[in-house]
Amino acid sequence: MIDFSGSYTDDYELTMAQVYFLKGRTESRAVFDYFFRKLPFNGGYAVFAGLDTLLDVLENWHFTEEDLAFLQQHGFNKDFIHYLGSFRFHGDVYSTAEGDVVFPTRPVLEVEAGILEAQIIETVLLNILNFQTLIATKASRMRQVAGKRVLVDFGLRRAQGVGGYHASRAAVIGGFDATSNVRAGMDFHIPVSGTMAHSFIESYDDELTAFRDFASCYPDNCVLLVDTYNTLESGLPNAIKVGKEMEKQGKKLSGIRLDSGDLAYMAKESRKMLDDAGLDYVKIAVSNQLDEYIIKSLLEQGAPVDYFGVGTSLVTGGPDAAIDGVYKLAYAAGEPRIKLSESWTKITLPYGKQVYRVRNQDGLLTGADVITLRDEENVERMCHPFEPDKSLSLIGSRREALLHQVMAKGKRLYPPRALAMIRDYSMKRVEELPGEYRRFENPHIYKIGLSDRLRDQRDQLIEQFKK
Amino acid sequence: MIDFSGSYTDDYELTMAQVYFLKGRTESRAVFDYFFRKLPFNGGYAVFAGLDTLLDVLENWHFTEEDLAFLQQHGFNKDFIHYLGSFRFHGDVYSTAEGDVVFPTRPVLEVEAGILEAQIIETVLLNILNFQTLIATKASRMRQVAGKRVLVDFGLRRAQGVGGYHASRAAVIGGFDATSNVRAGMDFHIPVSGTMAHSFIESYDDELTAFRDFASCYPDNCVLLVDTYNTLESGLPNAIKVGKEMEKQGKKLSGIRLDSGDLAYMAKESRKMLDDAGLDYVKIAVSNQLDEYIIKSLLEQGAPVDYFGVGTSLVTGGPDAAIDGVYKLAYAAGEPRIKLSESWTKITLPYGKQVYRVRNQDGLLTGADVITLRDEENVERMCHPFEPDKSLSLIGSRREALLHQVMAKGKRLYPPRALAMIRDYSMKRVEELPGEYRRFENPHIYKIGLSDRLRDQRDQLIEQFKK
Repeated sequence: MIDFSGSYTDDYELTMAQVYFLKGRTESRAVFDYFFRKLPFNGGYAVFAGLDTLLDVLENWHFTEEDLAFLQQHGFNKDFIHYLGSFRFHGDVYSTAEGDVVFPTRPVLEVEAGILEAQIIETVLLNILNFQTLIATKASRMRQVAGKRVLVDFGLRRAQGVGGYHASRAAVIGGFDATSNVRAGMDFHIPVSGTMAHSFIESYDDELTAFRDFASCYPDNCVLLVDTYNTLESGLPNAIKVGKEMEKQGKKLSGIRLDSGDLAYMAKESRKMLDDAGLDYVKIAVSNQLDEYIIKSLLEQGAPVDYFGVGTSLVTGGPDAAIDGVYKLAYAAGEPRIKLSESWTKITLPYGKQVYRVRNQDGLLTGADVITLRDEENVERMCHPFEPDKSLSLIGSRREALLHQVMAKGKRLYPPRALAMIRDYSMKRVEELPGEYRRFENPHIYKIGLSDRLRDQRDQLIEQFKK
Repeated sequence: MIDFSGSYTDDYELTMAQVYFLKGRTESRAVFDYFFRKLPFNGGYAVFAGLDTLLDVLENWHFTEEDLAFLQQHGFNKDFIHYLGSFRFHGDVYSTAEGDVVFPTRPVLEVEAGILEAQIIETVLLNILNFQTLIATKASRMRQVAGKRVLVDFGLRRAQGVGGYHASRAAVIGGFDATSNVRAGMDFHIPVSGTMAHSFIESYDDELTAFRDFASCYPDNCVLLVDTYNTLESGLPNAIKVGKEMEKQGKKLSGIRLDSGDLAYMAKESRKMLDDAGLDYVKIAVSNQLDEYIIKSLLEQGAPVDYFGVGTSLVTGGPDAAIDGVYKLAYAAGEPRIKLSESWTKITLPYGKQVYRVRNQDGLLTGADVITLRDEENVERMCHPFEPDKSLSLIGSRREALLHQVMAKGKRLYPPRALAMIRDYSMKRVEELPGEYRRFENPHIYKIGLSDRLRDQRDQLIEQFKK
């Protein structure tokens, strides 16, 4: 139903492409930057996600017969449609590694290709990267506060339609352990998890029989939902009864789940009742409108929670719901290109570029990335992008190049990485960030600077266009 | 890539289904209600959307070979997997018409089927209806303030991944006119619209040549983006020059687009400059982080805008990002069913039900829907759901039944309606609502009541379970 063929795009990409085609500019070499301007959730970092999905799409990007028929009917030129019929993406892609921490205004990814090809992929690129980066970032915030506890994505029912599919993927990159989403589990090799709804218990005449039926079907993985009627007076006592019955058969009740009420209080009371009954091995799972702030609060209150099931806020990235990622032209037709704006921070950066993470002699992060021209060497200091007097010496520091070529002439240079590996990398990169960048309240602002040469080139262009 | 086969679900639906299967309860007749508890955007109504998508899914719902292989590997019982191999949905669906206005706590849709079938479709049903209803509602709010002006969905790049596909559909139901999303346009027969990005202009050495190239390719539909360098000193003068050149060829410039800066001021200045140049027929389109409040503000300031292009806030439903729709058991195994809760408003309603819209003798809305048992007649008053002393006489009023059977034994009873028809119906139903329910600030609260019989049945069940 929904695949990423050529019609998965904004109409204006095709409108512009047709002009390039008809005016003979198709092959004119262009560079575009993908970056965003504002961190979501008032946070101090974002986790870059979606790269593997994007590369897969770019390798297979083509127009179907149905796409072409629609465009013909929509009034596009016949020669252009013929061209689209054999269209393939042949460009180069330079990217930050998937799972790395990224910051506003610096290129996260660059595309270099003939201008028609580079332009026409804009919408699908933004659609994939903006969303997965949003969700991976949200998930990472939850991982920050959850410590080693298990985080499970419960979001599919509240996801933005089929968007839930990639939300589950991105949640793992940010640090989630499992998902309720079967399709995502199957396609992305994510552990899948799920137990019962209130309706299951309600469909029986009594709660105890419902629990016993469930336990008899899942003797090795039985998690009982205890809040359908009355958590402490009915759900817990019945769960304990079933737990003791399972013990007699040499089995163990895996856990109970709380999905309403005061979760901190209920978790503490449940822990006490389970422990008093000798069921200290039974885990406690909680769910119900959780987000990173509620998880943090529950743990600060000492709630003995082992599993958090998170839905809506995880898979929609609420309250932000979108990252403002853009795709801007930096080079075309042999010349550097720039977009002016009355707002300084919206002025773009010309040329193909590289981004370096600045580390001290011990390899520790200094809280700065510097943007340079792509092949620039000997960068001795980084300048503030807009304040001429502010700069930072880089002498004696180490630089880690962040943009690596991942696609050449439309072909991936490396096979896809397993999602679990991207997750491990992401967790490591987030952990490296000093705590000040990870805290929720007024996090430190990570510095993004320019090399002298890049800044000078940009300023010359600004002058030129102002004339 | 993403279709709605059986693995598009939460794992717990399958876990519960397996218990029903193994315990011989598969065919036990059940009724589930779909409803939500809170209106999004602090608004006074929601627009129900997604029904046609859902019915299409239910008619075709099955498990693929790949789904079954995954479930087998995941430890499900072989007999159960064999059963799933020939699974089809054979249930009945009673629904509110797609596009109608709906309110919290009343059933929007009911499913009646064997409990396994009725349960297993929960996730996909919620995933589809929650999201499309959210977006249709957001779109409707924009339509309320935009009047007859043209509203175009520009959201795909900021949509929640592939969720953007159904967002474009739902936007039309809420009152949008067109979309930039080519795939959605193709599949749902929505007018598709798109012109140029800043990058198009930047790729040329000068703006005027870019405009001329574009105009020569689209003489009958040329909209020029005028804010790449300087709107009033460069973009507008160049657009006017091209507009005058087009006139000499017997053509007309269609419009200009503003995408940054103070849109109210820029639109007014642009209008003046265009009119002064004799181009009073040229339309003005604006975009850039619009939502219903900004559209309202622009028009209140007298901004002469003809087209609004709306992206992020439309297709993500930000800042809410989700509707809290749920799917609750009302009847099973020959008995009415209920979910208790410490919060009265979270207690569910038993039995299959009907919902009536109450109108006065002239057919005008009175601001109330009443929920009854499905086949109840002679409902003479509606009761407040929780306050025993509050009721409203229905004598002398007209009642419009809102739930209609749309699917019987897994087959649709009517062919799909064209999206344009659903849109017309939706606009009519919203217009019928008195203004107090449509305003943004503290809208009137639409009343939802129960028939005496339904309330009595519910209260009896509550008493029974409290014992």
